[in-house]
Amino acid sequence: MMRTRFQQQMEDLREKLLRMGGLAELAVDRATQAYTERDLTRCQLVLENESLINAAEREIDEMAFDILATQQPAATDLRFILAVTKINADLERVGDQAVNIAERVMDLIELPAVELPVDIPRMATAVSAMVRRALESFVEGKAELAQAVLEMDHVVDRMRDEAFIMLVRKMNEEPQVTQQALDALLVARNLERVADHATNISEDVIFWVLGADVRHHAQAASAAQRPERSEA
Amino acid sequence: MMRTRFQQQMEDLREKLLRMGGLAELAVDRATQAYTERDLTRCQLVLENESLINAAEREIDEMAFDILATQQPAATDLRFILAVTKINADLERVGDQAVNIAERVMDLIELPAVELPVDIPRMATAVSAMVRRALESFVEGKAELAQAVLEMDHVVDRMRDEAFIMLVRKMNEEPQVTQQALDALLVARNLERVADHATNISEDVIFWVLGADVRHHAQAASAAQRPERSEA
Repeated sequence: MMRTRFQQQMEDLREKLLRMGGLAELAVDRATQAYTERDLTRCQLVLENESLINAAEREIDEMAFDILATQQPAATDLRFILAVTKINADLERVGDQAVNIAERVMDLIELPAVELPVDIPRMATAVSAMVRRALESFVEGKAELAQAVLEMDHVVDRMRDEAFIMLVRKMNEEPQVTQQALDALLVARNLERVADHATNISEDVIFWVLGADVRHHAQAASAAQRPERSEA
Repeated sequence: MMRTRFQQQMEDLREKLLRMGGLAELAVDRATQAYTERDLTRCQLVLENESLINAAEREIDEMAFDILATQQPAATDLRFILAVTKINADLERVGDQAVNIAERVMDLIELPAVELPVDIPRMATAVSAMVRRALESFVEGKAELAQAVLEMDHVVDRMRDEAFIMLVRKMNEEPQVTQQALDALLVARNLERVADHATNISEDVIFWVLGADVRHHAQAASAAQRPERSEA
């Protein structure tokens, strides 16, 4: 069966967004490894690759604009395209968070290494899983997968709160490591923001698949099924 | 001259977005006043009004979707609608930042009041001006106004950097005020993020007015005219 030009354009848009998702995921993973291994090279890779992510964002927006302008897609296709433009913006911001983490790590590497009461790798694992599953839910068009991501967000929020309490205590007890503790605290906050973007992406997938807007519906019948949009 | 239904829809969309912009601006102003005056009531107002902002975001997205689905707008109108959906998302996040600030202020109010080496009101004034001008550039469809906002972003970034340095020094010298200094530092960071959203909004206005994508073009001929998109 021949594909129409429209089908091909939609498929290209989908693939391009997935590639961008891969870049954003990689950036977060690299930034976190850079934290764990105090690795300047990985930090620099994250900074360099930001321009690739930015270029991808622009291309995707242009593709979406072209399809809307020339094909007048209806209903589900239109929702898909609008979801893509929103997911696109969130992925670009995931890339920005990776850059923020890399910058904090570059600051940390300059300072004496100290033991800190925060498990950044564990938090990063949870956050990466959220981004990956949000993209899977997009690939497979499955609202249930997206729903699962929304529920994981609370876990990451809790990790962030815990990290804040422990790190502030550390700053109080050992003022000489304040800068390091603050860097770690900001890395935790950046990771939490990546989780928020994964949450946004999942909501956009649900909007596309179900045609329902799940944002800001904490008051709905089933709170478990419709958690409130969160962005801290 | 009679307005077509399409013209009326476009005008409604524009007005709705402006009202939402007003809500987001008000939230930031209230949160900052709450900081200055250690005022719990204003904090609670910010938290309560978040749901209004969230509802407005949903409505605007639905209006945009309806116009796209039923009117198949072309060229400039299409760019306008896409710009509206992006500005909409940024305004909702401005509201989130105001909530974050209010939460920090609620934490601060519980702690002894201390003198901190940071001028939050001055930073807030600059940030509010950016949001207001970004919205003005949208109302008037003037790319030059939007351009001016992009240039203000560097000033706010510098204020944030300064605040970080001074507040970390304070934490080192007086560990007993670490929590207060950290709260102020996070307020400064939230304000800087509001400025980033104002920057994003301005870029969307330029995209709509000029049909040109100014994001991520730091390498362009005139760096002054095309600063890189920033989100810290």
